[in-house]
Amino acid sequence: MTAPMDAILAGIAARAAAARAYLAADDFLDRITPPSLREAASAYLQRGGKGLRPAVVLLACGAAGGREEWALAAAAAAEVTHNWTLIHDDVLDRDEQRRGAPTVHAWGAAQAEEVGLAPAEARHYGVALAILGGDVGPSWAAHLLARLPENGVTSAADAFALATSLAATTVPAILTGEAEDVELSRAPLDDVTLERVEGMLARKTGALYAWCAAAGATLAGASYDIILKLKEFALLCGTAFQHVDDTLPFVSDEARLGKPAASDLREGKRTAVILGAWARASAPERVFIARTLGRGDAPPAELAELKELLCRRGGVAFARARAGEYYERAQGILAAAPPGEARELLAGWAEYMLTRDR
Amino acid sequence: MTAPMDAILAGIAARAAAARAYLAADDFLDRITPPSLREAASAYLQRGGKGLRPAVVLLACGAAGGREEWALAAAAAAEVTHNWTLIHDDVLDRDEQRRGAPTVHAWGAAQAEEVGLAPAEARHYGVALAILGGDVGPSWAAHLLARLPENGVTSAADAFALATSLAATTVPAILTGEAEDVELSRAPLDDVTLERVEGMLARKTGALYAWCAAAGATLAGASYDIILKLKEFALLCGTAFQHVDDTLPFVSDEARLGKPAASDLREGKRTAVILGAWARASAPERVFIARTLGRGDAPPAELAELKELLCRRGGVAFARARAGEYYERAQGILAAAPPGEARELLAGWAEYMLTRDR
Repeated sequence: MTAPMDAILAGIAARAAAARAYLAADDFLDRITPPSLREAASAYLQRGGKGLRPAVVLLACGAAGGREEWALAAAAAAEVTHNWTLIHDDVLDRDEQRRGAPTVHAWGAAQAEEVGLAPAEARHYGVALAILGGDVGPSWAAHLLARLPENGVTSAADAFALATSLAATTVPAILTGEAEDVELSRAPLDDVTLERVEGMLARKTGALYAWCAAAGATLAGASYDIILKLKEFALLCGTAFQHVDDTLPFVSDEARLGKPAASDLREGKRTAVILGAWARASAPERVFIARTLGRGDAPPAELAELKELLCRRGGVAFARARAGEYYERAQGILAAAPPGEARELLAGWAEYMLTRDR
Repeated sequence: MTAPMDAILAGIAARAAAARAYLAADDFLDRITPPSLREAASAYLQRGGKGLRPAVVLLACGAAGGREEWALAAAAAAEVTHNWTLIHDDVLDRDEQRRGAPTVHAWGAAQAEEVGLAPAEARHYGVALAILGGDVGPSWAAHLLARLPENGVTSAADAFALATSLAATTVPAILTGEAEDVELSRAPLDDVTLERVEGMLARKTGALYAWCAAAGATLAGASYDIILKLKEFALLCGTAFQHVDDTLPFVSDEARLGKPAASDLREGKRTAVILGAWARASAPERVFIARTLGRGDAPPAELAELKELLCRRGGVAFARARAGEYYERAQGILAAAPPGEARELLAGWAEYMLTRDR
């Protein structure tokens, strides 16, 4: 059913590039001063990224019978939304690297140290810059969605409905998912069920993909039934994607990931990898897992041992299997959508979401 | 022209209460979990607050010939917007108290310490909770503004325009003002002009008041000319208000303020108080000011000496005089609006903005 992977990748890259070009021609950032704030708000976008969310907006629009350019402003808004949630999430997760360069808060701190601030003051400045830089994001997305009617096709009512659903429904779901992620990291492992973890993943990651597909289909003028089907498809793919994402630190190296592989373990993230291994671990292994997971100051050797143990007890295989189940359900839903090149590309996008290694 | 101050205060309090009642009956927060995130997003609102922004929305609607209840959702959105910017601003300013109780990040840290986290981990958890709790705000405001047409009068087009202007114009102005505030705190005092400080204040504080007045007038169906006049009036009052706010730590005690009086001095805020005193200070006094201002670890005795010096060199008087000039210009603009009870209350609101002591 799907095209060869290199054609899929080229198809995704072309959509990501189109959304990026739309963003580059937009003037919103011009009103943001001082320059450090503008830089903070847009740094990750300058570094590329896979552009999977804008791609699904455009592909869903095409698959639902629309012209992809009608959805460009929504694709750009999806990328901007993902971007600002990353900026804040990197503070929450204390990640220092993103896309092969310093995270916004780490970059801000380095800048402040350069002009002579003491390390603690510099770190505070970095966090302040990341908070404000992220806060620019919802504004930027609102600006972009207000531009939708410029395409000559979208009504103001549809633009308003999409802006409201992104801001008032999707973003709260993402934030709820992130807060649950933080809270679960502190929960005893025996209390953490797969259902809770997958609910959290669906909100943290799936919700924005669901909005992307629904937005693309809405802008194509699709029927309510098609909109809901594509939305469900993307929600499942987004959740599968996060399962796969959680396995990458175990199978890929830091250079490919663009961030430290042990970050999730240090933060004590409760992923399907952890749950899968926990279920199969012996009593002494469980003691070791509970003691080491979430210890910010765990020595690298212990983290390496933890990583190895989680793989050995089938954690990575379990998470991949869960991702595979979500993928199967997603492809089943897509098969009910009208056939055509865009549907094939969307199916290929789903396949890429499952098989990517970075 | 204005009513007695107790009538003015009662008028403002009634509007603030109406907006609060609208918020209390709204169901947005129900979709926010876990409970800690819901609590973080709404804690300050539970503590009251003066409700000056919702009051100006409703009074501007009345002054422009509308019925105040048409603007309730916009008044609630203004309060929610102020609320989330406070949550993030408190992290930036490292304030521990707000409205007589712990700030969100301080409260989160205390909760985390109670369940056994080490102090540094607990502080990080508190900041994470404040980031996510604040991030809920723009979503909440978008939800409220989408409800405007429920009043049976406001068109979806007007609601969309107000939501877009709040998110895409007003909020970026606030964030730009806050970032300028942080940046100015680190600038050499000789480089800081009154023009830069007042531009920053107009964005940080004036912009939201300007939106409030414009929203109220728009929802009344006022002419473009009236909308612009009321907007300019509120921008000037908001800037005057911030000048007055910056003098309060010098003339009011902490119990009345609900926050530590020395916070601005420790953060090195460049206010009109500082500029006024700096201009009149002797060379040795300037050395002392430059050395002590912005020193996070300055001993209380030195901060007390700095406070006393800034007053003695006319800093507070200078800031109050600047506020007075803004107030005069604002009242001059208001005199051009149609006369009536709402205009009188709005004039009284402006007077309160200038004379309040907490």
